[in-house]
Amino acid sequence: MARQNTNSGPTGPTGPTGPTGATPAGGARRGKAVTLRDIAQRTGFSVNTVSHALKGKGDISPATRKRICQTAQQMGYIGNASASFLRSGVSKTVAILVGDISNPHFSIMVKELEAALQQQGYVAFVLNTGEDARQEREAIVAALQKNVDGVILCPAPSGEDNVRFLQQKRVPFVLAGRYFEDAPCDYVACDDEQGGYLAMRHLLALGHRRILFVNGPQGISSAREREAGCRRALAESAVLGAQFAVKTVPVTLGDGQELAKALGLDGGIADYTAVIAFSDMLAWEVIYLLGQRGVQVPQQVSVLGFDNIQSRFLFPVPLTTVSSSKYTLAQMAAGRLLDLLQGRAPGSGERLAVRLIERGTTAQPPAGK
Amino acid sequence: MARQNTNSGPTGPTGPTGPTGATPAGGARRGKAVTLRDIAQRTGFSVNTVSHALKGKGDISPATRKRICQTAQQMGYIGNASASFLRSGVSKTVAILVGDISNPHFSIMVKELEAALQQQGYVAFVLNTGEDARQEREAIVAALQKNVDGVILCPAPSGEDNVRFLQQKRVPFVLAGRYFEDAPCDYVACDDEQGGYLAMRHLLALGHRRILFVNGPQGISSAREREAGCRRALAESAVLGAQFAVKTVPVTLGDGQELAKALGLDGGIADYTAVIAFSDMLAWEVIYLLGQRGVQVPQQVSVLGFDNIQSRFLFPVPLTTVSSSKYTLAQMAAGRLLDLLQGRAPGSGERLAVRLIERGTTAQPPAGK
Repeated sequence: MARQNTNSGPTGPTGPTGPTGATPAGGARRGKAVTLRDIAQRTGFSVNTVSHALKGKGDISPATRKRICQTAQQMGYIGNASASFLRSGVSKTVAILVGDISNPHFSIMVKELEAALQQQGYVAFVLNTGEDARQEREAIVAALQKNVDGVILCPAPSGEDNVRFLQQKRVPFVLAGRYFEDAPCDYVACDDEQGGYLAMRHLLALGHRRILFVNGPQGISSAREREAGCRRALAESAVLGAQFAVKTVPVTLGDGQELAKALGLDGGIADYTAVIAFSDMLAWEVIYLLGQRGVQVPQQVSVLGFDNIQSRFLFPVPLTTVSSSKYTLAQMAAGRLLDLLQGRAPGSGERLAVRLIERGTTAQPPAGK
Repeated sequence: MARQNTNSGPTGPTGPTGPTGATPAGGARRGKAVTLRDIAQRTGFSVNTVSHALKGKGDISPATRKRICQTAQQMGYIGNASASFLRSGVSKTVAILVGDISNPHFSIMVKELEAALQQQGYVAFVLNTGEDARQEREAIVAALQKNVDGVILCPAPSGEDNVRFLQQKRVPFVLAGRYFEDAPCDYVACDDEQGGYLAMRHLLALGHRRILFVNGPQGISSAREREAGCRRALAESAVLGAQFAVKTVPVTLGDGQELAKALGLDGGIADYTAVIAFSDMLAWEVIYLLGQRGVQVPQQVSVLGFDNIQSRFLFPVPLTTVSSSKYTLAQMAAGRLLDLLQGRAPGSGERLAVRLIERGTTAQPPAGK
């Protein structure tokens, strides 16, 4: 993609700031920033009074506070969070770490978390972990260097050590969507075992007997639990001779090669009438790849996902899916973190109920299959 | 969605930190943090030497630096960004402000921006503006309170005043994807006029004569320019009597009511054989809504979008789309911001080329239409 340089660089026309404008970066830039002293001079109060008024402390009369705050606003005063942090030790920031912010599963969660935290006066850093434990450690260190008050983490597969690292650093944190059995901590996750159970029961009830699960890595709790739930439904059912195969695929999206291989579309064997996908995004990729080979969903193969992305975006291929409320999950995770920030001792896990939503991508298997 | 409290609160079992663990928030929490003094004691160097070594200043020998950095790493030292900011005036943070982080159009851009900034040692706050100028102002103020070095903003419709506000505050910033004619500043945007032109030319060449554009608000530069490009293609063509209607819809997603109305699916008049949608996400919603009414795409109606989301996710309904590289856009926007942070004077706009990608959602109109 070519660059079209219509006009750029120091020789181009400048904005209202003019050519003598913004000296960037740091002190120089802030040279004209309004200070507490400026507001004190304008209002006639002491710097201390101005400071207390702007912080909303109780020792200032409402009338004085109002006058100082109005003047500060007129003068364009913006507080200095770093100085405030060094005084109070509270930065009012939270880091949110997810596998891939471009994936709607995470970006919807991030949006809800950000909204929940903002209601309590916090702003959020967002950092990608690339679903990789090493990159996740770097992101955690970057966040701590920024003095975040707390962390909400959707942990990368096999990221137990990073959980222990956060515990060693004594940073309040909550895991969202996933957890580790051998690194207990605060977390909020879906009842994924029940989710797998509901998915499998639905397909068995429709008459499917050869079912493929394209699942995420076993280092992800939701992948393990969904598979366990599938196996429980199989064991419970009176169906004899049902076949259930599990293939592990990467949870990152947009490649398709590994997925095509798992589906037996690369010349391998494709012997199933239904596919359970680890996520809705993956389920759509499954349907896309099947469609490329002329396989119709659900007439020839049923496909089912997890996450109910459809509740946020109206896609033309509405998926049968196992749903939990991302809004509720975000509210719970943010609430837990705020509790930790207010002094509650670290706890353990909390679960969110799931339900099956039937849409157009699952049906009875073709006759004779 | 019910909460399933498997175990929570102070009475639950605690992690390795134990019940006497993390006193949250601030100084107390950082009580055990490794300080420069600790590293000085361990290594036998002065605090000043340790500080210079960790910052990579030139007055420390490579051997000494290596020893100090290794010791710091072993001891789990994490620098204090706030103290560093107050010394240097540089926070190494950038705020990214977008309309809706849950929308893949933005979340893909945010991911690329974050990666480009991270390569230069910056971390990114992400804040939602809700495509609303007032909420955008609040997000800008929140970012400035955090002493961000710079801002990358995909501006809300009619957000000119916020651009001027950033200029008054002398904050280095770059607009991404949109700009304002009457508030000149640094920006990187697609050649949207050409995008509209390509879209319309494609549909005219297929034989469409009644074309509907469901467009974003006129306060968004890309909406205005795409419409202008459509009109240029119409004017240039030798086609007589082609009808072109434009309906404005909200750019936020997942509702569908306004969109159904714009499409004439609420009992109004649906007199078109092709729909141009302001974005791919909107195009999928169009196809979903048409499908609900039994209208087949592209057999009965052709649909075309902008953004090429398909390049990142394999959706089962591959769209004909006008594409530009989000990777290149992010690289250019981040590069411009870094230039500003290093002292370049504010400049003006830069454009990214676009191209049409034909996929399965456009075809000739039905015979006799």
